[in-house]
Amino acid sequence: MNTFLDPLIDPLFKGYPAQAPALRRSQIGEQGWNVLADQLPLPLAVVHRDALTHNLSWMQRLANEAGIALAPHGKTTMSPQLFQAQLAAGAWGITFANVQQLTIGVASGVRRAVVANQLVQKAELAALASLQRQTPDLRVAFLVDSVEQLARIEQADQSIAFEVLVELGLPNGRTGARTDEEALALARRLHASPCVRLAGVEVYEGLWAKGEDTEDAALVNGLMQRLHRLVAACDAEKLFDVPEILVSAGGSAVFDLVARGLRGAGSPRPMQALLRSGCYVTHDDGAYRRYAQAVNRRLGCSDASGLRAALEVWTVVQSRPEPGLAILNAGKRDVSTDWGLPVATKLARAGEREAVDAPTGWSIDKLNDQHTYLRLNDAGLDLKVGDRVALGISHPCTTFDKWRWMAVVDEHYRVVDALTTHF
Amino acid sequence: MNTFLDPLIDPLFKGYPAQAPALRRSQIGEQGWNVLADQLPLPLAVVHRDALTHNLSWMQRLANEAGIALAPHGKTTMSPQLFQAQLAAGAWGITFANVQQLTIGVASGVRRAVVANQLVQKAELAALASLQRQTPDLRVAFLVDSVEQLARIEQADQSIAFEVLVELGLPNGRTGARTDEEALALARRLHASPCVRLAGVEVYEGLWAKGEDTEDAALVNGLMQRLHRLVAACDAEKLFDVPEILVSAGGSAVFDLVARGLRGAGSPRPMQALLRSGCYVTHDDGAYRRYAQAVNRRLGCSDASGLRAALEVWTVVQSRPEPGLAILNAGKRDVSTDWGLPVATKLARAGEREAVDAPTGWSIDKLNDQHTYLRLNDAGLDLKVGDRVALGISHPCTTFDKWRWMAVVDEHYRVVDALTTHF
Repeated sequence: MNTFLDPLIDPLFKGYPAQAPALRRSQIGEQGWNVLADQLPLPLAVVHRDALTHNLSWMQRLANEAGIALAPHGKTTMSPQLFQAQLAAGAWGITFANVQQLTIGVASGVRRAVVANQLVQKAELAALASLQRQTPDLRVAFLVDSVEQLARIEQADQSIAFEVLVELGLPNGRTGARTDEEALALARRLHASPCVRLAGVEVYEGLWAKGEDTEDAALVNGLMQRLHRLVAACDAEKLFDVPEILVSAGGSAVFDLVARGLRGAGSPRPMQALLRSGCYVTHDDGAYRRYAQAVNRRLGCSDASGLRAALEVWTVVQSRPEPGLAILNAGKRDVSTDWGLPVATKLARAGEREAVDAPTGWSIDKLNDQHTYLRLNDAGLDLKVGDRVALGISHPCTTFDKWRWMAVVDEHYRVVDALTTHF
Repeated sequence: MNTFLDPLIDPLFKGYPAQAPALRRSQIGEQGWNVLADQLPLPLAVVHRDALTHNLSWMQRLANEAGIALAPHGKTTMSPQLFQAQLAAGAWGITFANVQQLTIGVASGVRRAVVANQLVQKAELAALASLQRQTPDLRVAFLVDSVEQLARIEQADQSIAFEVLVELGLPNGRTGARTDEEALALARRLHASPCVRLAGVEVYEGLWAKGEDTEDAALVNGLMQRLHRLVAACDAEKLFDVPEILVSAGGSAVFDLVARGLRGAGSPRPMQALLRSGCYVTHDDGAYRRYAQAVNRRLGCSDASGLRAALEVWTVVQSRPEPGLAILNAGKRDVSTDWGLPVATKLARAGEREAVDAPTGWSIDKLNDQHTYLRLNDAGLDLKVGDRVALGISHPCTTFDKWRWMAVVDEHYRVVDALTTHF
């Protein structure tokens, strides 16, 4: 196996058993470790294999049924093994935020990619050109939203005519041309430039999603109409410079609405519609869980059969300094805090190998770098030093980037595999 | 040189030139790279050598003048090279948050350490015992704040009697015995246990500091009195089991007050007073900058001669989608957002090698995972795609953990060295 996909993991990795030898990722599952057996030092991030497998196939099926393809955002996990799993499940390719991430993707076996960002730096464009020369079967397109950016590209590496997507944006939004006229004018300039090939159009709706059906549907429908109008206008002027047009949208909040609208009414030429959701792979117990409730309702599927939270960070109670307070030995270095604080989801008593649901009513109101403040209601009064508490997270991206490896576990918390990350 | 201190850095590290060969850290400074010459892809975290050197000696002098020692918190940087620099500047040892961090410290050459946390897990205590057996010249003490924790220790590895510090806490605080009576009772139990050796007492004041002289002085004086009363009480009962008592406090907010109070009125036996501030090493342009203004005022030193912000994250303008808005290509994955958002500190025009101060009036009001929203006032209206903007950070800990390496630069942004991190 590619050693990049099967790297050594050693005791200097957070959560790895201090006295175990360095092991290849593929050997970890053979060690007979159990997360609840006090063999691996907590905190430790674990991914549930069943939920992961379910999410991979659930999302791919959703895309298949909508007649679109997945290019999941790889920035979420930056995990070679998860990129492989996404491709094996049927993903068209993987999305990245920059060329360094893409380089890791290519080393992981990715051969079709979107860099969902405006590239402008000589150093980065040269890196992309070099990567493409070294990997002749790699197809990659990045975003352009201004003629100023095109000018930067034209001043940089000239050895490759890069595939680019025009980005449509929203007023008061992030990147992207604010009006359809600007976008079409930019498409003409891109088509006319020898340094790039216009490959399609792109939009990002995720920042505006509210989790409310009517507003979200209006948002997505409006954007999809703009997107397809732009495709038609570009096509009418023969601005596309590639045999297969790419049309892409994609956060993880209202992906069902996007999936439905992305394919459009058909195109006069081959078109690949790419959904870029990234967070579905582990889902979460916070922000995306709330969005998913609306998704499930719209799809007519129960929450139990929808996406499942696959990622937990296990911690230990290190102190019970006051009756209503437990201090857990994980903090901002271990778990997302940028989009909602974690929640206590499971409890395993000291010395026991069984995890039960955490009592309702516990809450987490603060984290320091290395500590979590768990506030207990009556049901928690006998929580003891040494007991273990699992934290469900909100926003997978900012938990993945805190771990160089994670344990993959079965339903009994036996470690059956491992994954690594490259941030 | 120890290869742990001089590891290979390669193009898969964020911010490293894609086409450079993998290089030892010690070779990076010989490459003639310049951060502003578009050789290294941005975003890139840089540490200013001059400010770093200044901070190292400034803080050591403050400790020397107060007659105390430094055990800077290593969790801030987790950088072997910075641990070495702190020790070389005169630090007594390094503080860590857990045994995995300590292991990295020992691999970096640290031989005196505080683990400023309650250890309770069998796996972690066994790792500590093993590390101590393998490193006979290592002295390390960790915190205990409850008899329940002592019971966990007694059930774990029995091969070493660990050095421990009783932690004093504050009501509504984090860890630590809430009353002096509890602390003294715990000290008696620790002295009586064959599994540990009582080595001293500890407190953490940082969470309560307000940056206001009167309140902060009252806080610190009160805590220092409690600390020294506890030392005296333990000493009177001959509870200390080591020849040299450790007395420690230490955040990075009001360290001058702590330094003044930590030594106390003297002790009947050798005592090492340890200040654990960690963030001083790079300081910041946010939370700690504000605290430092009070520190400098109390010390009677100008802000210019006090601690200096040594850490910046350089970014590039990837989009100017609206007149008052620039989108920078760095985000929550690159820079702290947990304790104040970053601020734009410097500007280097596209193609130029000179950095100037950013105009006043620019502000940053949001970051996504990979993007920063820079709001411009009139002075910024001509900021262009491809221009570079430096972000000053708030809270060094949560920027360090986003980089596996950082470039060390001189005043012209020439890369003169590099450091690595182990999170």
